[in-house]
Parts: sequence; C-alpha cells; structure tokens
Amino acid sequence: MAMKRPNRRGFLKGGVALAGLATEGGQLLHGQTQGMPPKKIDELIAYGERSHFVTSIRVPVAERHSPDEFGLTFHVLTPLQDSFGIITPSSLHYTATHRGAFVPDIDPREHRLMIHGMVDRPLVFSVEDLKRLPYLSRIHFIECLGNRARPSHKTVQETHGLTSCAEWTGVPLSLLLKEAGVQNAASWIVAEGAEEVKGASSIPLAKAMDDCLVCYAMNGEPIRPQQGFPLRLIVPGFEGIYQIKYLRRIKLVDRYYMTYDDYGHINPDPKVAALTHQIGPKSVITFPSGGQQLSGAGFYEITGLAWSGGGAVRTVEVSTDGGNTWKNADLRSPAFPMAHTRFGLNWNWDGKECVLMSRCVDELGTAQPTRAEIAKYWNKPLDENLRIPGADNSVQPWRVASDGSIHNGLS
Amino acid sequence: MAMKRPNRRGFLKGGVALAGLATEGGQLLHGQTQGMPPKKIDELIAYGERSHFVTSIRVPVAERHSPDEFGLTFHVLTPLQDSFGIITPSSLHYTATHRGAFVPDIDPREHRLMIHGMVDRPLVFSVEDLKRLPYLSRIHFIECLGNRARPSHKTVQETHGLTSCAEWTGVPLSLLLKEAGVQNAASWIVAEGAEEVKGASSIPLAKAMDDCLVCYAMNGEPIRPQQGFPLRLIVPGFEGIYQIKYLRRIKLVDRYYMTYDDYGHINPDPKVAALTHQIGPKSVITFPSGGQQLSGAGFYEITGLAWSGGGAVRTVEVSTDGGNTWKNADLRSPAFPMAHTRFGLNWNWDGKECVLMSRCVDELGTAQPTRAEIAKYWNKPLDENLRIPGADNSVQPWRVASDGSIHNGLS
Repeated sequence: MAMKRPNRRGFLKGGVALAGLATEGGQLLHGQTQGMPPKKIDELIAYGERSHFVTSIRVPVAERHSPDEFGLTFHVLTPLQDSFGIITPSSLHYTATHRGAFVPDIDPREHRLMIHGMVDRPLVFSVEDLKRLPYLSRIHFIECLGNRARPSHKTVQETHGLTSCAEWTGVPLSLLLKEAGVQNAASWIVAEGAEEVKGASSIPLAKAMDDCLVCYAMNGEPIRPQQGFPLRLIVPGFEGIYQIKYLRRIKLVDRYYMTYDDYGHINPDPKVAALTHQIGPKSVITFPSGGQQLSGAGFYEITGLAWSGGGAVRTVEVSTDGGNTWKNADLRSPAFPMAHTRFGLNWNWDGKECVLMSRCVDELGTAQPTRAEIAKYWNKPLDENLRIPGADNSVQPWRVASDGSIHNGLS
Repeated sequence: MAMKRPNRRGFLKGGVALAGLATEGGQLLHGQTQGMPPKKIDELIAYGERSHFVTSIRVPVAERHSPDEFGLTFHVLTPLQDSFGIITPSSLHYTATHRGAFVPDIDPREHRLMIHGMVDRPLVFSVEDLKRLPYLSRIHFIECLGNRARPSHKTVQETHGLTSCAEWTGVPLSLLLKEAGVQNAASWIVAEGAEEVKGASSIPLAKAMDDCLVCYAMNGEPIRPQQGFPLRLIVPGFEGIYQIKYLRRIKLVDRYYMTYDDYGHINPDPKVAALTHQIGPKSVITFPSGGQQLSGAGFYEITGLAWSGGGAVRTVEVSTDGGNTWKNADLRSPAFPMAHTRFGLNWNWDGKECVLMSRCVDELGTAQPTRAEIAKYWNKPLDENLRIPGADNSVQPWRVASDGSIHNGLS
C-alpha cells in the first residue's frame, strides 16, 4: 500500500497534514491521537497529560471548617492511596489555606521579597534577583498539623492526606539573612505571605539560619499557584503553616510574635514554641488501606510512607497482627532528611481477619507512638473522636476483613 | 459589612454558594478564582495547574526525520533553559518515538507482560500482578542518543533537550527473571513494547539482572502515556531506545538480536554492543544558555545539569574563559547514580565577551570530552555540522556577547 509521506513540519506546526493522513490512512492513527483535533495534538506536544485511565484526584477535608467568617478555607487532601515513590505530583500536592481566598494571582515580575527589621541593611529582592543567587534543590515533605486520623475516616486520603513531598529549589535563607546583616538582638523572624489576611509565622532564628529555603521552584518548574507562586518559604520538618506561601516579607525581631496563623495550637512560650512546630516521626500504610480491596489470600506488597521533622527515617516496622509482632520493612526509596520515605514489606495473607500497622524511628532515635502512648503522655483519655491535644503522629491501624475489604482500625 | 457565610460543602461540591458570594462580595474572590466558573474551581481542587504566567513548553526537533515511511516520528525537546533542580515535570519530559504513532491508548486492565524464551517457567503478569511485588523508587535520567548539539541550534532546548530525569517506581527486573528461572545458555534479553512496529531492544543479561526496573509509575503517579503507560522498562544509564515503552514482552535469548530500533548506530558485535549503549558523562549549562539575555555586568548564578550512564556525577567544573581555566562548581542537588545532578557556580560577569563551558567527571573517573578530543578519538575531522560518529557527550560552549546576549559557541 503506497502512502503519501506527510510534511512533518506542517503536521507539527499546524496539524493540517495529520488531518489529511487521518482520512487517508486512519489505521495508523490510534490511541490518544485518534479523532483528536490538531490543536489538541499540538497542545500534547507542548505539555503532556496523564492517561484518561488515571482518575486519581484530591478531595476537600469534610469536617474542617474555616476559622474565618467567610468559609473560604480550603483543606484539600492528596490521594495517598494512589501514591508511588516519594514525589507527590504537583497537581495532587495537598493544599491548605486559612486566609479567605483560594489562590492569589501574582505577577512574578511585580512580586518583591523584603527583609527588614533588626538587620543592618534592609533588602528587597525581585524573583529574578533571587534566581541570580546560589540555591539548593532538596526533597522535603510538608504536612499540615491538622493531618489527623479520626474514626469516621474511611480512607488514607482522609486520615493522612494533608502531607505531600516535592523537590524544592531555592536560595538558602541564611544567605539572604547574612547579606542583610542580622543584628545581635534578633532571635526570631516573622515571615509573611501576600495573602489577604497576611498569613504569617514566627520562626526561631536558629531554624531560619539552618536549613530554610526561599523557593521559586517545585518539582522542576516554577511553584504552582496553589503552593505559593512565585515564592514559598520552606522550613524543613516544621508543620505546614510555617511554609509561607506567596512570601513577601521577612522581619527580624527579638521575640515570638503571635500571628493570624497561631489559631490556638502554637505555644507562645519561646522555650517551648520551637519544639511544638516539628512534625513526626510518622508513618502510614498506603496499601492496603481503608476502602481498598484484596482479591483473596496470597502475596501482597504492603507499602507506605514514613517521614519525620527530626531528620531522615532510619527504620520502619510493620505489624500484620495488630501490633503483637513487628517485622522490619525495606526502605524502597532513598531516605532524605525531612522527606517522605517509601517502605515496603512483602506479605502472604492467609485470608483471615487481621490488623496492619506501621511505625517508624527517625535518625534521632525518636519512635512513632501509639494512640495509647499519646493519651498517656497527655495524661487524659481520648474522647470518642480520639482527638489528640497536640500533633497526631500516632500509629494507624487498618483492619483487613476476611472478605479482603480494608477498614479504618480506629472505628 | 455583614456577609452571609456560604455553605462550604455546597461551595465545594457544586459551586453554587460561591457563585452567590461572587455577586455579593466579589472583592473576596480574586486571583485564579475570580470570574472562574464553579466547574473550573472544582477541577482545580481535584487536580491543580501551573500558573498562567508560566508558559514553558516542549518543541519538536527541527532537523530529525523519521526512519519510517509515514513521517510520524516525534522527537519532542524538553525546555532545559527553564529547568530547576533535577526532576523534569512529567508534562515536560522529552519524548521520542520511531514507531509510526504518537501514543498507544492502552487499557491497563487489558495489558500483559510476558517473560518467555530461555526460561524454566514462562510467566505472564498483569499490571496489578506487578504492583503486588516488591519494588523500588529511583531517580534516573533518560537520554536519546540523538541528543547532539549542532551549530544551527540556538538554545539548550535544541542542543540538549532530549534528556530528562524522573523518579521511576517499579519491580526489579532481576526479581521477575529469577521467578521465571533463566536458563544457563541465555545471555541477552529482547524487550518489546506494544507499539505498531514493535519497538524492541536487545539488552545484555548482565544489565537486565543488575539495576533494570519494570516501572508502572513516574514522578509519583502512573507513567504518562507519552512515557509508556502502563509499563516501561527502565535501563539506568543506557540510551533512550532501551527504555522500552508500553512493555509487553521480554524474551530470554542466547545472542544479540537486531531489532527495528537498531537503526544504524548500534554495533551488533556483542563484545562491543554492550559498551556503546551507555550515556555520557555529560553536562551542559542551562543558564546562561543560548537565546537568554544577561541584564548587564554583575553577579549571576551559572547553573546546569550533569549526568552519566556510568554512575553518579563526582565533580563538575565550569570555565568562563573558553576552557583556559576551570573552577569546581558546587553540586546543588543530591548526586544519584544515573541521574541528572544540578550544579551551580556564582559568577561575577565583567561585561566583556566570553565563553562559558562545563565538564564533568563521573564516579568511574571518566571525564566529559571536548569535540576536539572526540574527533581525535575517531581519527577524522568533524564535518561542517560537527557531526560526531558516535554519541555526543562533548563540552558545550555558550558565547556571552558584550551586550549580554548568549549564543551557541559552536556556530
């Protein structure tokens, strides 16, 4: 069969030749190009998409209500049950805001970051200025302190979906602070974003000088609007509200300042405050997890994520008998400091009801606690919602029913 | 001003309350939500998008023509000039095919991988079967051997855009091969994808048993269709054609088999063939690079990517005087085996014309050569297109003009 060779550049540029070919030899054009208008094909060349068979999406948190009067808070959960490896796709990264609007639409050419307060030389940077400075790329998780499992939750997206992990690229904050000349009396910074109600957080100067990054990129492209485009402060291992989106101002101060973000759960005592910010150690099994279904007895890969604000994950253990015995899981990804770490354990399910759990230990030697241990620490029994007074980094149980269905072990 | 509190769940589910609010108090709704239909907002909750200020796109290779008669080859270049860190966003990952169609549209429930040939137990796996097995997540680059700079190229997207890097998740091929029971006489595998002309490659058994992964995920989600959904064989450090997309068959054989993919540049001599597959060591400066513009004398961050099929990048050096003197660059990201590695060097440009170059050494001690060294190796002068007989991992020069414009140093 003789076929005309279409002009390839014409095809790619305008799609006209392709349209002709589709008529002449449609059997060549199958799959995602079949029946597609040329403009759509040009778009797919420019910027690819996921398969139409892949339908994993984020969902809003059901029970969290806004602290502001307008009800526009968003807490949007990442679908951990569908996660692979340690990178969260940017389109599925969890997002949370308390500030009355979804996404500020900032022109990066107009945006500025000011560093001022107790410094010798107040500085103002454009985004382009920052890109001219030395930078680092680091893989870090972010987790909302509100990421807590409740008995009513059905899936791991609901129990743990307010954590995600990405490659962040930006300038070390310490470099900017040294350039500004931090005065001796300064001991905290207040970082503020360009949001309506001025989302801001007080951060100890020691942390600011340690490993914080003023980021302009995430997962290899400019930070997405829902994640703080064009600038986000990454404070590795601290809870979500410290990762200031739309960063526009860093003020050097000599004390902890209360901000809008301190909505009741931060201790303003500077001796304690710096310790209450830090996440984990924490882990959760993402498969099998609530709402999923095993197809009968046999081998399965138990897999999940572990992370800690205290450093790299050192070990993860998995129990398949409700915590009576534990086995060391394998780390299936590199274990970076303050990053999600993927673990796995092959498991031969005998078809009987059982409870799966994971627990991790970080490089400081800190171990993930059970709910009972947390209740003992707070010295009071948990209520019917198992509400934990502080952060919830407790062990998550998943109950495997004999029909292979998986259920929240808290309910 | 008293405002009604909209029903949040109604807002998120149907968008009706938001529409009401937009009328009553439009000043609250700004940025990317302003004027957006509720359906669009629901979509952004489910699956986020990049900023409309970010317009970086892939472009087709201008001068490469298809080896097949239908002209449907695609070589689509990733915009390295806009890259950050080491992860390439999946939507911008380079893609190349020689097989007469853009993207097969495969239903993952129907897809199977067969392992057969010189094995004791031929096996067939569904994608779900594979997900039940132990797996690894690793960050690896893929590069097309056709990734070569020419004097006519204006930008780093044109000179080097056929390489990208992602987190790949899948089952070690060695595990599957051990399960199948490789017979003693087997020495090669032929891996084949479900493409029209049966894209396939012969791979030495030693490599197959070493670090290859049968992947179902990339950057935290199922592999994108343009990258091989639902299964892709990752052969770390080998050139692109070995990374078989739409993987459906692995045959154990006792010799090197010629395949459609061997379009002239692979040596069929098994003693040599295994050595000609491996990429690099290679590096390129992505900023400042061709087509970009410096805004005058002063400090800039020279940044780029280095990678090698021989292992991790050990050192990268940068020259700002056309190769007369070299300085050690800093590694700005972790340096993984067979992965892009980000380097940077702060530079004070004096405003005079100069030539920037980078060169790297990998953990084997192999150094990236100049074009002159490559020509000497092949013992013949390069033609006017500086065409290199084998792989092109040569040092790329960028010429900085005194007006700050950047040009390809090869032209």
